[in-house]
Amino acid sequence: MYRAGIDLGGTNIKAGIIDENHKILAQTSAPIGVERPAEEVIADMAVLVRQLMDTLGMDESMLAGIGVGCPGLVDADVGVVRYSNNISWENVALVKELGNYFSCEIRISNDANCAALGEVKAGAAKNVSNAILLTLGTGVGGGIILDGKVFEGSNAGGAELGHISMILGGEPCTCGRRGCVETYVSATALIRDAKRAAAANKKSLLNQMCGGVLEHMNGRIPFDAALAGDKVAKEVVENYYTYLAEAVANYVNIFRPDVVILAGGVCNRIGCLTTSVEEHLSFLCYGGDRAFVPPVRCAILGNHAGMIGAANLITVHRSREQNE
Amino acid sequence: MYRAGIDLGGTNIKAGIIDENHKILAQTSAPIGVERPAEEVIADMAVLVRQLMDTLGMDESMLAGIGVGCPGLVDADVGVVRYSNNISWENVALVKELGNYFSCEIRISNDANCAALGEVKAGAAKNVSNAILLTLGTGVGGGIILDGKVFEGSNAGGAELGHISMILGGEPCTCGRRGCVETYVSATALIRDAKRAAAANKKSLLNQMCGGVLEHMNGRIPFDAALAGDKVAKEVVENYYTYLAEAVANYVNIFRPDVVILAGGVCNRIGCLTTSVEEHLSFLCYGGDRAFVPPVRCAILGNHAGMIGAANLITVHRSREQNE
Repeated sequence: MYRAGIDLGGTNIKAGIIDENHKILAQTSAPIGVERPAEEVIADMAVLVRQLMDTLGMDESMLAGIGVGCPGLVDADVGVVRYSNNISWENVALVKELGNYFSCEIRISNDANCAALGEVKAGAAKNVSNAILLTLGTGVGGGIILDGKVFEGSNAGGAELGHISMILGGEPCTCGRRGCVETYVSATALIRDAKRAAAANKKSLLNQMCGGVLEHMNGRIPFDAALAGDKVAKEVVENYYTYLAEAVANYVNIFRPDVVILAGGVCNRIGCLTTSVEEHLSFLCYGGDRAFVPPVRCAILGNHAGMIGAANLITVHRSREQNE
Repeated sequence: MYRAGIDLGGTNIKAGIIDENHKILAQTSAPIGVERPAEEVIADMAVLVRQLMDTLGMDESMLAGIGVGCPGLVDADVGVVRYSNNISWENVALVKELGNYFSCEIRISNDANCAALGEVKAGAAKNVSNAILLTLGTGVGGGIILDGKVFEGSNAGGAELGHISMILGGEPCTCGRRGCVETYVSATALIRDAKRAAAANKKSLLNQMCGGVLEHMNGRIPFDAALAGDKVAKEVVENYYTYLAEAVANYVNIFRPDVVILAGGVCNRIGCLTTSVEEHLSFLCYGGDRAFVPPVRCAILGNHAGMIGAANLITVHRSREQNE
């Protein structure tokens, strides 16, 4: 049996069909056009899946189901996207609407949950059952996998790992609170801190590397400047490692996963990120070496994690031969 | 079938036998004597359970199993208490050792987990399946119940809700980190903050109420002084509510439980604690009213929660008549 995975983003609808070994057999994408009504976007999702099925010569009897990863607050139990700032959706009954086009099973989850599931099924955490994934991007998404399944929380609005306050009254967060993890470990936060450090230290390499224009600061420059020996950049990077390790230690003290996976732009470009976090982690986790301290790994599936994870919201029973 | 529950504390071993409706049929206790070898303590645990069985005229065929709640880092999967500062245990194979005295099933868990399970099965969260419990005492214990079962984390050292940093670099914690939830919302933390406020404001009612001796400060005085209109005490109490609500909001953003339960000395004496936390919570939780914001309740089982919860580590299948 095959499964379709749809990764709904702020820019594009990405769709793919995978086999029982999580291999992408075909994939396609289309612009989402966030200004359109949700019904039109959902109709396009159906068109994309039908196109892929045609490409592969499949009929619906070969499709075990369709999984969709969406940004925002997703109520997986009832199949409704409660709210998504990125795509301007509110209370969209996605499972029901998409169900108008297909008779197979349809499931939805938050996009970070899907990325986590993808990495557990086919990526950096393959062969483990319990993992936490953090996407370090514009914001911070979190995915929790327990016993090989997405943990959504017991009611809508759980698993929001980016919105745990770590410095009470600290930096303002998009969620309305202050000091959330997202405001310290997102790429946005790193860039903000690098800009501030550069502004306060005109001679820092941070300024040179963005050509003296702070608006050109990106998530790579602080690491590059630190590597070149710049003291100010080193401090920015060390602080970032501290924030990230403290956040990860918090999740470990709650979940004790088999592995922690870091994903997103920051992590793709920085080889020593996981090592640095691991070094801090052994001191920070409750119980020290009396308890289990999980390894930290970078995600490996890149842009495919969400699609593969979304498809894996649909469970198929693999035959013995395929498992071996 | 009956079940035995043992609540191992820093001072006493408490044991009880409950029926399928969670009613305590008989209970007893003995001093733990923390200076003794673990083997002796475990032998006493067996004696206590045998005494209770004799009292009830039970033989072991009527005992479905024995559950034990222990302070500290408990590896429930392998039945070992990894480390407990309170009772000076390290790597004690409790399930194996206690198994020398009984042939029935034996299970162990952390004491806060047991208290949470007790409240879910027979107390403040009866009839719900998903709950978070916080015990606000000398430290802060946390229990997580998912689908009616204790969530231990995927490896030893999970569910340590008191050891989540909420003010990075803040007050020193017994775990070695700084700024953990425990260092702001425990009764110990409240008393520390009240002492500091009293020392800095000699005319505050806080000083009068502890007879001018700060060592006599307790967890009740700040609330009493605030109620009497003392401005300094009001600030201490408001800060405490803020800390507690921020911590609870963090757990809600991760777990979205059906209910949050507060337990321990502070909560027993203060009627408006849950209301105050609930008021903050509706603003703090991710998604606001688009997501589910759980009610906050005080625990109702008191000292029995741990014992009833420990007994409920053993699952029995209730007959239809008993369920109705």
